[in-house]
Amino acid sequence: MRVTLNCDMGESYGQWQFGDDAGIMPHIDYANIACGFHAADPVTMAEAVALAVSHRVAIGAHPSLPDREGFGRREMRLKPSELTAAFLYQIGALTGILAAQGARLSHVKPHGIIYGMAAREMDTARAIAAATKVFGVPLFGLAGTCHETAAAEAGIPFVREFFADLAYGPAGELIIPRKQTAVDIEKAAARLKGVLERGRIEATDGTPLSISADSICIHSDPPNARDVAVALRKVIDDHNRTAPKAQ
Amino acid sequence: MRVTLNCDMGESYGQWQFGDDAGIMPHIDYANIACGFHAADPVTMAEAVALAVSHRVAIGAHPSLPDREGFGRREMRLKPSELTAAFLYQIGALTGILAAQGARLSHVKPHGIIYGMAAREMDTARAIAAATKVFGVPLFGLAGTCHETAAAEAGIPFVREFFADLAYGPAGELIIPRKQTAVDIEKAAARLKGVLERGRIEATDGTPLSISADSICIHSDPPNARDVAVALRKVIDDHNRTAPKAQ
Amino acid sequence: MRVTLNCDMGESYGQWQFGDDAGIMPHIDYANIACGFHAADPVTMAEAVALAVSHRVAIGAHPSLPDREGFGRREMRLKPSELTAAFLYQIGALTGILAAQGARLSHVKPHGIIYGMAAREMDTARAIAAATKVFGVPLFGLAGTCHETAAAEAGIPFVREFFADLAYGPAGELIIPRKQTAVDIEKAAARLKGVLERGRIEATDGTPLSISADSICIHSDPPNARDVAVALRKVIDDHNRTAPKAQ
Amino acid sequence: MRVTLNCDMGESYGQWQFGDDAGIMPHIDYANIACGFHAADPVTMAEAVALAVSHRVAIGAHPSLPDREGFGRREMRLKPSELTAAFLYQIGALTGILAAQGARLSHVKPHGIIYGMAAREMDTARAIAAATKVFGVPLFGLAGTCHETAAAEAGIPFVREFFADLAYGPAGELIIPRKQTAVDIEKAAARLKGVLERGRIEATDGTPLSISADSICIHSDPPNARDVAVALRKVIDDHNRTAPKAQ
Repeated sequence: MRVTLNCDMGESYGQWQFGDDAGIMPHIDYANIACGFHAADPVTMAEAVALAVSHRVAIGAHPSLPDREGFGRREMRLKPSELTAAFLYQIGALTGILAAQGARLSHVKPHGIIYGMAAREMDTARAIAAATKVFGVPLFGLAGTCHETAAAEAGIPFVREFFADLAYGPAGELIIPRKQTAVDIEKAAARLKGVLERGRIEATDGTPLSISADSICIHSDPPNARDVAVALRKVIDDHNRTAPKAQ
Repeated sequence: MRVTLNCDMGESYGQWQFGDDAGIMPHIDYANIACGFHAADPVTMAEAVALAVSHRVAIGAHPSLPDREGFGRREMRLKPSELTAAFLYQIGALTGILAAQGARLSHVKPHGIIYGMAAREMDTARAIAAATKVFGVPLFGLAGTCHETAAAEAGIPFVREFFADLAYGPAGELIIPRKQTAVDIEKAAARLKGVLERGRIEATDGTPLSISADSICIHSDPPNARDVAVALRKVIDDHNRTAPKAQ
Repeated sequence: MRVTLNCDMGESYGQWQFGDDAGIMPHIDYANIACGFHAADPVTMAEAVALAVSHRVAIGAHPSLPDREGFGRREMRLKPSELTAAFLYQIGALTGILAAQGARLSHVKPHGIIYGMAAREMDTARAIAAATKVFGVPLFGLAGTCHETAAAEAGIPFVREFFADLAYGPAGELIIPRKQTAVDIEKAAARLKGVLERGRIEATDGTPLSISADSICIHSDPPNARDVAVALRKVIDDHNRTAPKAQ
Repeated sequence: MRVTLNCDMGESYGQWQFGDDAGIMPHIDYANIACGFHAADPVTMAEAVALAVSHRVAIGAHPSLPDREGFGRREMRLKPSELTAAFLYQIGALTGILAAQGARLSHVKPHGIIYGMAAREMDTARAIAAATKVFGVPLFGLAGTCHETAAAEAGIPFVREFFADLAYGPAGELIIPRKQTAVDIEKAAARLKGVLERGRIEATDGTPLSISADSICIHSDPPNARDVAVALRKVIDDHNRTAPKAQ
């Protein structure tokens, strides 16, 4: 199966810069653009959209819990109806920015801690799937979790992600470092090959984990983010050349 | 010409209530729903949309400068590109909420001080018209101002408003009271009749003002807001019965 | 022992009004003033302080989790160091407003869900006690909980509260209604007498609960809040007349 | 007269980094720490305070208009009473953070556009002076402006600043670049010597400007900010060695 490369983008805010959007955009298939709740203001979103459009990168919404100060990484308890409304608001906001540039929404990928909560909690996953369904686009998430189940229930396509630049804990949970340091590109490429060839990686404690992935996620903020993008793009292209073109 | 009645709605925020949406909604043609920058959160917006849908009221976006604490009534200098992006974001956000309920955007009406700034400043008016044009809907504003000129330039329909529950200053500017008190309904009805029959009202100092109006605006927060809606609805219905049905 | 009456105050925000501060202030001993994170802006705080000063009511800080949209009532996970810093910031902000009016900080009382979390979690309670200790004032909270333990550890006075206008669950947890309705004053007065005379109330399911209280808390937002204040003031005054004057 | 070196600090926000606080702190006399309205969250403030304390740098408040997205650089019209309350809130918040570390407030310096507005408008300058007076500390600002007049009226000390890393327009107004580029250190040092030796610089169009300065301000965000600090520190130290020690 062919796989794609995606990256979270547009995570600057006002005067504050975040991530090497310009360096990475030429190398990815999908940009997940922040929608203002954990990062991005309307101008930042418009700039990220323009950059993606100029590189013919498909644009998805990257909505979050309403916690800019915590970058959407602090657990927060919204009622499912609040969460659905918050996602409708953010995804809709991005579609407004997209429409002004003649672009269309490609997918939805939750940001930060709510991504992990959607993997573990059916109520959270269903609230997100409900909002996504309104826009008729696929949902990105972790394979084999509540997130995938909720997407199936809602009848929306689910794109299974592998995080090539993060470590996985023994239960398959993502380990998000507080401050990004340079990614060990060789190790990341090896892990990615493991997933693409054998559907398998090792958790931080050595536990073997089965991973099914349709799209590979990288982040924009490690200091060598552009080099990571280039290197993993190559691994993916090599894989795709030999992959069956189903779909 | 037939005229319509519109009201700003969805201006609660979290636990804080504002305005008698439920009392007014049955009596209006257009609801201008706050989009989160001066008032409303996603749940408040969803509730206001549901109420409007249940009364078959057309729903417009009511975007604002980003100033919740000042309720969008404090002057703030955004660059035109910032203003356009802020409006695209807000209007888009509302369309997300609307889509979930099978409803569509009817129009755009700027909120608060940016409404007055759009009347006086071509740059502001053009920034707003540019955002509105993306959604292909009419813009509400004050007749004979920069706002109307910018809409014409952009080639979008312009709906001229009369504010039946506000006083007008000698230059035609709206006088927005800090705390809403009960509206003098008899006076408001008389003023409205003046506009409908003679296209004319008196400013606070007696200066005669010419007013052209396609839609009559009322506010949700005076203590007798529902009664104002009922009374002005009747004046409008009486007028429309005899008005030519052009368009 | 003499008991006091306290009320959460200053919970309006911008144009949005909340609670009958003016009606209640004459009847209480302590005003817990919101500090901007769940409610109140700087002007609202200044007005609440002025009102309290004019009635010689002692003024405490009522800090919260950073969640205005959720009114500080949605669970949110801050690290203890984040929580301490957030409380230092809010309490400090109030002391700035107080200083301008020649008033001094009397106490600290956490708001909303973090109040309950401080009762159940030592880390949360310690983070709050650490911030309070900096200002050298007592901490208000629930008797017999982590909150009281943490205050004792930190060596700061702890004022045990009873919520006369809320119901208690079987585990002693407060039941906060989403929308305030009128308080049954007779019932509230009876419950208060139960606490003052026998140190005992019944939970919602009839479970008897032991309650030790130094100060009785009421809220500003039930429609009959002022009448509640007057009625419970009388119960307290009657009690205090016969109570030993220890301290 | 001896002069000092000051720098705006603590202007990161959540995950977003801004400025080389650690590189600059060893070289300055005064740190002006952001208070949450244009930049900084409580943890960022606590970290900036700790850094300043460790270098025995005096700590002032750097309050702003409430506009995080615009970094306090967009004009916004608050009423004087709103502005005073906003400043009391922010300065007070910093004093809370300071108290936890045994530090004291040294001064107040307004941030961004409100700094320029205080130079041009008596109402704005008076609102700021009123808040500063409450804390009994000096106010930093531009010599010969409304700002200095208002401080004199209020009876508070005024510290006259020169911005060594910014260009001045012909009317003495500061020209703040949207994106910081590297400062031309030789030119900045030459300009600073001009001010220290002759009280004079040239505006962007060659107009000679008289400048009186007690403290020299630099910014934390040019890429070579630390080198600027080191170079100007040397110029100042050379000047101070020969300056009369009055006060």
